[in-house]
Amino acid sequence: MKSYRKELWFNTTSRRQYINITPEVERCLGESGIMEGFLLCNAMHITASVFINDDERGLHRDFERWLEKLAPEKPYEYYEHNGYEDNADAHLKRSVMGREVVVAVTNGELDFGPWEQIFYGEFDGKREKRVLVKIIGE
Amino acid sequence: MKSYRKELWFNTTSRRQYINITPEVERCLGESGIMEGFLLCNAMHITASVFINDDERGLHRDFERWLEKLAPEKPYEYYEHNGYEDNADAHLKRSVMGREVVVAVTNGELDFGPWEQIFYGEFDGKREKRVLVKIIGE
Amino acid sequence: MKSYRKELWFNTTSRRQYINITPEVERCLGESGIMEGFLLCNAMHITASVFINDDERGLHRDFERWLEKLAPEKPYEYYEHNGYEDNADAHLKRSVMGREVVVAVTNGELDFGPWEQIFYGEFDGKREKRVLVKIIGE
Repeated sequence: MKSYRKELWFNTTSRRQYINITPEVERCLGESGIMEGFLLCNAMHITASVFINDDERGLHRDFERWLEKLAPEKPYEYYEHNGYEDNADAHLKRSVMGREVVVAVTNGELDFGPWEQIFYGEFDGKREKRVLVKIIGE
Repeated sequence: MKSYRKELWFNTTSRRQYINITPEVERCLGESGIMEGFLLCNAMHITASVFINDDERGLHRDFERWLEKLAPEKPYEYYEHNGYEDNADAHLKRSVMGREVVVAVTNGELDFGPWEQIFYGEFDGKREKRVLVKIIGE
Repeated sequence: MKSYRKELWFNTTSRRQYINITPEVERCLGESGIMEGFLLCNAMHITASVFINDDERGLHRDFERWLEKLAPEKPYEYYEHNGYEDNADAHLKRSVMGREVVVAVTNGELDFGPWEQIFYGEFDGKREKRVLVKIIGE
């Protein structure tokens, strides 16, 4: 069994942002030389998400509006977690969107349907944060 | 390490539907000959879900009503994604229910608790869509 | 390839509760002797969750209030599933929080970011329920 590990770093310009990281993840898979196996991609921070969906800007604005309705950023004092922080909403938003994805690796490629793309979802950005890519297989 | 791959195809009669795919997934596991490992089962489309829950019709009607409350199908024009599509709600519903499950394989069987069943959750159906089953192990 | 399996049992004192199970999961990893691979930790019951987030009490109270808003426990008769049970809300809450986590194993340790901790999220407790830890790798 082979294994491969890499961290990808991000520093977004706004508090919330969606970044298509599929090309970076594919580069990791190429470097790994793994042809058959599983690829795990997860946020290493608990106020960010890695998820698979469509690379369409309108949809990303829909995500933003929807998540703000489900778990609004403000008022900060609504949340007990915000005694010494202001990011409780980011913990909740990330819970909806998920921490990680597991992707099948087949013939050395991400085994994806036609529109699947991997996104880093940042909900408390403007600082250095990272994603883990770990691949196991042969 | 052994690996196995299969696509399962669905074409639901209604826009939204829940299908218990546990028997098909178990058949895949049997075909694979894998006794110890991990099984990944994921929607290959971004408006559908694979999740584990109870095979109980009342609960599935509760899911339907609940998801319609969290992310209503209409009005279509509420969503920016719906400029050229009408399925933004399906992307959001799938985000709540999840893209994939990873299941332990032990002694050649899905290592499940008493009520765990795998479902295909369709949120934008009436067309050919598929699920990936990938198994790695020995 | 090595594999390891263990069940962790819980019996919470209240209907809903969050328990940090990171030390038990780390103990499993140590017992397994696996240095590189993937660790799966999942609820074996469909009204409970395993998720990764922050070990902070204020945040856990925020989770409680937020999930009660998204999927209230009562009135019981609101849910069709509650004809012979009273836990429909627990199935929905667990859908938001997720069934499982997959964690990378690197150098014999959980490959975590600074604040990642694994929680058992109970939404219909006061009875014996369990979590599966399965590890594969080398």
